[in-house]
Amino acid sequence: MANLSVISELHKRANTHIVLLVMDGLGGLPRESDGRTELEAAATPNMDRLAREGTLGMTIPLGAGLTPGSGPAHLSLFGYDPIARPVGRGVLESIGVGLEVRPGDVAARGNFCTIDAHGLITDRRASRIPGDQAAPITERLAEIRVDGASVAVRHVREHRFAIVLRGPGLDPALEDTDPQATGVAPLPVRAAHPPAAKTAAIVQAWVDQAFERLRGEPLANGLTLRGFSTDPALPPFPKTFGVRAGCIAVYPMYRGVSALAGMQVVALDGETPEDEFRAAAGAWNDYDFLFIHVKKPDSRGEDGDFEGKARAIEEVDRALPALLDLKPEVLAITGDHSTPSRLRSHSWHPVPLLLWAPATTRRDAQDHFGETACAAGGLGTFPASDLMPLLLAHAGRLEKYGA
Amino acid sequence: MANLSVISELHKRANTHIVLLVMDGLGGLPRESDGRTELEAAATPNMDRLAREGTLGMTIPLGAGLTPGSGPAHLSLFGYDPIARPVGRGVLESIGVGLEVRPGDVAARGNFCTIDAHGLITDRRASRIPGDQAAPITERLAEIRVDGASVAVRHVREHRFAIVLRGPGLDPALEDTDPQATGVAPLPVRAAHPPAAKTAAIVQAWVDQAFERLRGEPLANGLTLRGFSTDPALPPFPKTFGVRAGCIAVYPMYRGVSALAGMQVVALDGETPEDEFRAAAGAWNDYDFLFIHVKKPDSRGEDGDFEGKARAIEEVDRALPALLDLKPEVLAITGDHSTPSRLRSHSWHPVPLLLWAPATTRRDAQDHFGETACAAGGLGTFPASDLMPLLLAHAGRLEKYGA
Repeated sequence: MANLSVISELHKRANTHIVLLVMDGLGGLPRESDGRTELEAAATPNMDRLAREGTLGMTIPLGAGLTPGSGPAHLSLFGYDPIARPVGRGVLESIGVGLEVRPGDVAARGNFCTIDAHGLITDRRASRIPGDQAAPITERLAEIRVDGASVAVRHVREHRFAIVLRGPGLDPALEDTDPQATGVAPLPVRAAHPPAAKTAAIVQAWVDQAFERLRGEPLANGLTLRGFSTDPALPPFPKTFGVRAGCIAVYPMYRGVSALAGMQVVALDGETPEDEFRAAAGAWNDYDFLFIHVKKPDSRGEDGDFEGKARAIEEVDRALPALLDLKPEVLAITGDHSTPSRLRSHSWHPVPLLLWAPATTRRDAQDHFGETACAAGGLGTFPASDLMPLLLAHAGRLEKYGA
Repeated sequence: MANLSVISELHKRANTHIVLLVMDGLGGLPRESDGRTELEAAATPNMDRLAREGTLGMTIPLGAGLTPGSGPAHLSLFGYDPIARPVGRGVLESIGVGLEVRPGDVAARGNFCTIDAHGLITDRRASRIPGDQAAPITERLAEIRVDGASVAVRHVREHRFAIVLRGPGLDPALEDTDPQATGVAPLPVRAAHPPAAKTAAIVQAWVDQAFERLRGEPLANGLTLRGFSTDPALPPFPKTFGVRAGCIAVYPMYRGVSALAGMQVVALDGETPEDEFRAAAGAWNDYDFLFIHVKKPDSRGEDGDFEGKARAIEEVDRALPALLDLKPEVLAITGDHSTPSRLRSHSWHPVPLLLWAPATTRRDAQDHFGETACAAGGLGTFPASDLMPLLLAHAGRLEKYGA
């Protein structure tokens, strides 16, 4: 695990660019026909050339056997320890739909539910009400006004929404109102410690108004709140690593987690890898470090679509020359976690990593980018949170430690 | 990271010898012509045979991306955690020139500077005054006597010297006198906390006398002191690892860091690998563990001399049969860090390791000693501070843990 306070004292000025290109859910599992993974089945001549010139390895997002969500997986890539320094579920849900969470705000996850005439829960997920029906209901909740805080509400998907309160003296130490059972009433909003009593009262006032507005709504006449949390006050990425850091991402979640870390979000026109690399070109002189996020490999993996995931990787490979034209000193191509299409979900498997830094990388015996090659790569298998110090070193941005 | 208190409770008696042969700065980077590193380009038939019979791996001196100085790099090889237990810069500079630092002593790094008629610094490094001119000036400082402590002073190189105070009740909590700027006067010696006030006064008395003696000296008429520190009180190496431990090294730095760890320094006549291995033969019956340090690969690496570094490695290989004739049960050949001649400096790259212990090593698929082979070696890539327990185990010197 990288020691961030040591790293933050070793900054060295250098006129070098680092690009961290993340293909979400990159890691896969072999298909039956030929034993190749999605990445191995994809035609990736550009990445294969970089693999020959650079060094491969594998990163472990959180720890052996641990399957990360998108938030923890990215925090680990950004050099943080998401287990020692957890980010609340409410915060992750909120930033995932583009709600800003600032220090002092209180964020939570919301679930629509159904209740009977006695106020007892009949379905904790409101029959997983479809998004096109849940979204307008969520919009009615966004109109609620309470004393003591402004409240932002946004639909996530199905029965899920996110809520962020902003106001003076808020405290996120609140207990879930979801009783995790049917046949009982939603719990009142309780403070987990006395200083949060005022916040509990504000949230309860909001909940009471929400139940009023949901009354008679056949699909979802109740709600519960969970995962109250605030900005985790991460050590700011630019200060920790000594770089002007920018994020290029299509999805709110990845912009949000970058912003939590203190990165700037770079304006992006379009949503393809070409568009993202064009945005990188436009921002090139303003940043030393660019995190570029490509969502599609994960989405196709979650669909169980092996071919679609391989094609999504090929799209990135075809666009890559435009990124290489910018002449980054250090380019890392990896994923935040694995999403094998066979599993249709995130997984714990280590993630392929390609490190290319012509001036400073050793070669290994590997000549293409894929899981089997990466597992035998020269960098070995190591915690994802060690990647950032390694990238800084290759970019000539870390001083020697000790005489 | 090795748990030293666990290791120290598992000692087992054995009549076995361990040799840790360190080629300073061993790790390198590939040259353009054929992609070989210095170690790979060197003709090393003896080491290649040992590689076939033994197991290869890579060690990480301090952590991902961290480039170690010589002191921390060796402490890590000796099983300590140099970040959790840092050794002061003053101590490292002093032992580097052969000044002894005992518990309770206060060591510092000194810089000659030039000051103008108003006492303001005009050059913080005295134009990097050449050693042959700085050495006699340093000798004049060595004649200074102060109340409360004996003081040893020794020239390092250019404008740098080291100073060690010894006396009752000294405290190293002193602030640097280097203001890190020109146009201002050197700072007075200040205590960082009240108990160090007496030590501050003693050092200030020495500084005042030093300025008297330097007055009118055109090359260096002032000085500053930095990095006040004392012996880090490391858990003694012989007691921690249950071995009679000796150090064979030409350079004071490596003798000094071994002595800090509690090793004995073995008398050495000459300075070649042959001479060092002859010293090992002479000391063979007095020690269970010998650390043998060869400096030249690092020096040639820092010169940017690829061929010279390769030849320095070949010299060690040619001399190796004399060491093997002693029949050590365990021989580890490695470096303390990498010094790629392409970078002309220490680097963060993992360090090649060859572990040869005929009775207990597994073989891997590697048949020569080099970075690419080591990265694919059977021991994998692991923290250098884990090496010592591994060597003890291969020497039959560790009991089983638990029933």
